[in-house]
Amino acid sequence: MESLINCAEEQQPSPVMTNSWSKQEAGRSEMPKCAGGFVLVHAGAGYHSESKAKEYKHVCKRACQRAVDQLRAGALAVEAVTAALVELEDSPFTNAGMGSNLNLSGEIECDASIMDGKSLHFGAVGAISGIKNPVLVANCLLTEAQKGKLSAGRIPPCFLVGRGAHDWAISHGIPPCPSEKMATKFSLSAYKRNKRKMEMAEKMDAGQNQEKKRRQSSENENGSGCLDTVGAVVVDSEGNVAAAVSSGGLAMKHPGRVGQAAHYGCGSWAENACNMNSYSAAVSTSGCGEHLIRTMLARECSAAMQSEDAHQALLEAMQNKFISSPFLASEDRVLGGVIVLRCCRCVEAQPTPNIQGAMVEFLWSHTTESMCVGYMSAQDSKAKTHISRLPPGTVPGKSLAIEGGVCQLMGIVD
Amino acid sequence: MESLINCAEEQQPSPVMTNSWSKQEAGRSEMPKCAGGFVLVHAGAGYHSESKAKEYKHVCKRACQRAVDQLRAGALAVEAVTAALVELEDSPFTNAGMGSNLNLSGEIECDASIMDGKSLHFGAVGAISGIKNPVLVANCLLTEAQKGKLSAGRIPPCFLVGRGAHDWAISHGIPPCPSEKMATKFSLSAYKRNKRKMEMAEKMDAGQNQEKKRRQSSENENGSGCLDTVGAVVVDSEGNVAAAVSSGGLAMKHPGRVGQAAHYGCGSWAENACNMNSYSAAVSTSGCGEHLIRTMLARECSAAMQSEDAHQALLEAMQNKFISSPFLASEDRVLGGVIVLRCCRCVEAQPTPNIQGAMVEFLWSHTTESMCVGYMSAQDSKAKTHISRLPPGTVPGKSLAIEGGVCQLMGIVD
Repeated sequence: MESLINCAEEQQPSPVMTNSWSKQEAGRSEMPKCAGGFVLVHAGAGYHSESKAKEYKHVCKRACQRAVDQLRAGALAVEAVTAALVELEDSPFTNAGMGSNLNLSGEIECDASIMDGKSLHFGAVGAISGIKNPVLVANCLLTEAQKGKLSAGRIPPCFLVGRGAHDWAISHGIPPCPSEKMATKFSLSAYKRNKRKMEMAEKMDAGQNQEKKRRQSSENENGSGCLDTVGAVVVDSEGNVAAAVSSGGLAMKHPGRVGQAAHYGCGSWAENACNMNSYSAAVSTSGCGEHLIRTMLARECSAAMQSEDAHQALLEAMQNKFISSPFLASEDRVLGGVIVLRCCRCVEAQPTPNIQGAMVEFLWSHTTESMCVGYMSAQDSKAKTHISRLPPGTVPGKSLAIEGGVCQLMGIVD
Repeated sequence: MESLINCAEEQQPSPVMTNSWSKQEAGRSEMPKCAGGFVLVHAGAGYHSESKAKEYKHVCKRACQRAVDQLRAGALAVEAVTAALVELEDSPFTNAGMGSNLNLSGEIECDASIMDGKSLHFGAVGAISGIKNPVLVANCLLTEAQKGKLSAGRIPPCFLVGRGAHDWAISHGIPPCPSEKMATKFSLSAYKRNKRKMEMAEKMDAGQNQEKKRRQSSENENGSGCLDTVGAVVVDSEGNVAAAVSSGGLAMKHPGRVGQAAHYGCGSWAENACNMNSYSAAVSTSGCGEHLIRTMLARECSAAMQSEDAHQALLEAMQNKFISSPFLASEDRVLGGVIVLRCCRCVEAQPTPNIQGAMVEFLWSHTTESMCVGYMSAQDSKAKTHISRLPPGTVPGKSLAIEGGVCQLMGIVD
């Protein structure tokens, strides 16, 4: 596995971008080798304080380990990505599952989705309460849809929300979890703090007219805030890709608000290579849900991965389809991040003609202050983790950071 | 306005397609003229019995009239499209608003969305109960989001579901409507009939294993069923486009199931012409929500409208991105329909250089047995309506019909 570097090796000309990238141009014998698959996870694009950096990195490490355990046992990408997400959701430090942001009413409502690059099936839940691991419901929806039609020719759902999603989950053997158990000391104190802040802002604005109030609020905004949605992308030993994402949503969101994590094409995307696509690609996003929905960022980044230069293509997608997107022309700051994995069979890279192999390129990019990631191949003894940050002096929502690496997978089975 | 023809003028070579299209190659003086805009509506792709044809046509006519009343009064496309949808939702014959399909629990849960091609803003509600006109909530979400951020820098939602969506609607002045008032004699008797059918199918399958049961159910399916979602696309006197869609969803759906009508890129799409797009385009879809979600049909058809030949581009999009989509490879029948409008300024078509004008091409295409549409320009005295049907002998879900026309708009203001 290659090490990651944070300094800019290929500085882009645009003043709004920062950019770092490592591609080891070593001989074949020096190329990193791994077997059984690869996982890349994120604990969100947002703001990760130095004081909690250790916790964020630790949960990414555990999530990678869970996925790799599955891959080593011969699991498919979609199972491994689910395992990684469960670990990320279970952490009280991430904004997903346990410890999710509370909404305006002080309740937890979660969004999650999963996509299987092999079958191209998709499962998603939105604004679901009382379920510890929303990704398990999304995965169950995907699995059930793959079984074909229900009684009397009814088409199985791919997207369920609210109470109906909760009841469907219970009837499919997913245990309920009392909402009060999902809130943490941290999420409760953040709720109280946010509520006070909101009340103060509304009091301050009370004398102003609606138009002024809206503008004032916008100016008060503190940049990226805390948007630590989680996600993962995986390639398995058969070369299949999968992607998943899970989120507690924006703090103080309106009850019933559904963000990008549940939205097809916006939160997660995975497509195996096929006649039309030379590369398998998987993407998971994080950040401001409304920005990620309106730009369909997961699908856009996946489509960009069919270009020859993955790094350049992602840079251009983040710049042209996100920061400068005509769909977000009225937004002062465009906040989000992605993790991306692409994979192609590369016969010329094989040490012997008898062993199948594949080259995995993995990348992350964000316009938020920071993004926490972890990655591991099935051949590694432990995961590597990293908190990527925008360089000092750059403006969140207007600048971007991009980093990544390359890994050669061995033992890929056709 | 040109008349529509149902016979094939440009028969396609593929045996799975039927295709009719009318383009009047008349001199300038014979070209149909209209002022103030144009509307095209649909009362769903599905199955429209001859016995109810009159009702379906009548509601399409009224919806066109409502939109044109708005256009004549100088309303923007987004307001006119909302007016058309309210009329379509209010009809007890359509599967939207009043008279929507009942879900498994015998309740009505509606989806709706709207997109404004000028601002590119989008608003949607999913699985909302107790609101007579879901499109009004979607439109209100769009309008509120355009005002900018909420207090304390919070980002306004673009997509709300379930109870939260209902409460948000009430707090924004949209009146509640008791669910029992939204069910009709027809929807209640359909629910009872479907329930019996489901119970019988499940009893028949009881002796078989799950795998067989699923397959059996698939074989029992009756083709297109009744999928009469409603929608509209509009271009206004300024040349702005807008699209909207509203649906009660599949009959006997699981509570909380959200279909394409609430899904960004899947139910409705509208984009004004800009640097990147020569044409303004608006699309509204209908049919099996899961098929329309997984193929993102509204956005795909809108993107296709940037090709030179709109008719050929829509034909190819319906064939390659829908019927033969790799995302639906496991589906035996792919069920859906679209209405599409595209518009470009055409200086050469102007009778005098002082009057601005635009050419509107409008199309519909469906793989379901039938699709009911209506259309009208602000210059027409009444709307034209039509029930398009697949030719006898073709298979729903595997064949398609495509029809449309052209209209020259005068008095478009820059």
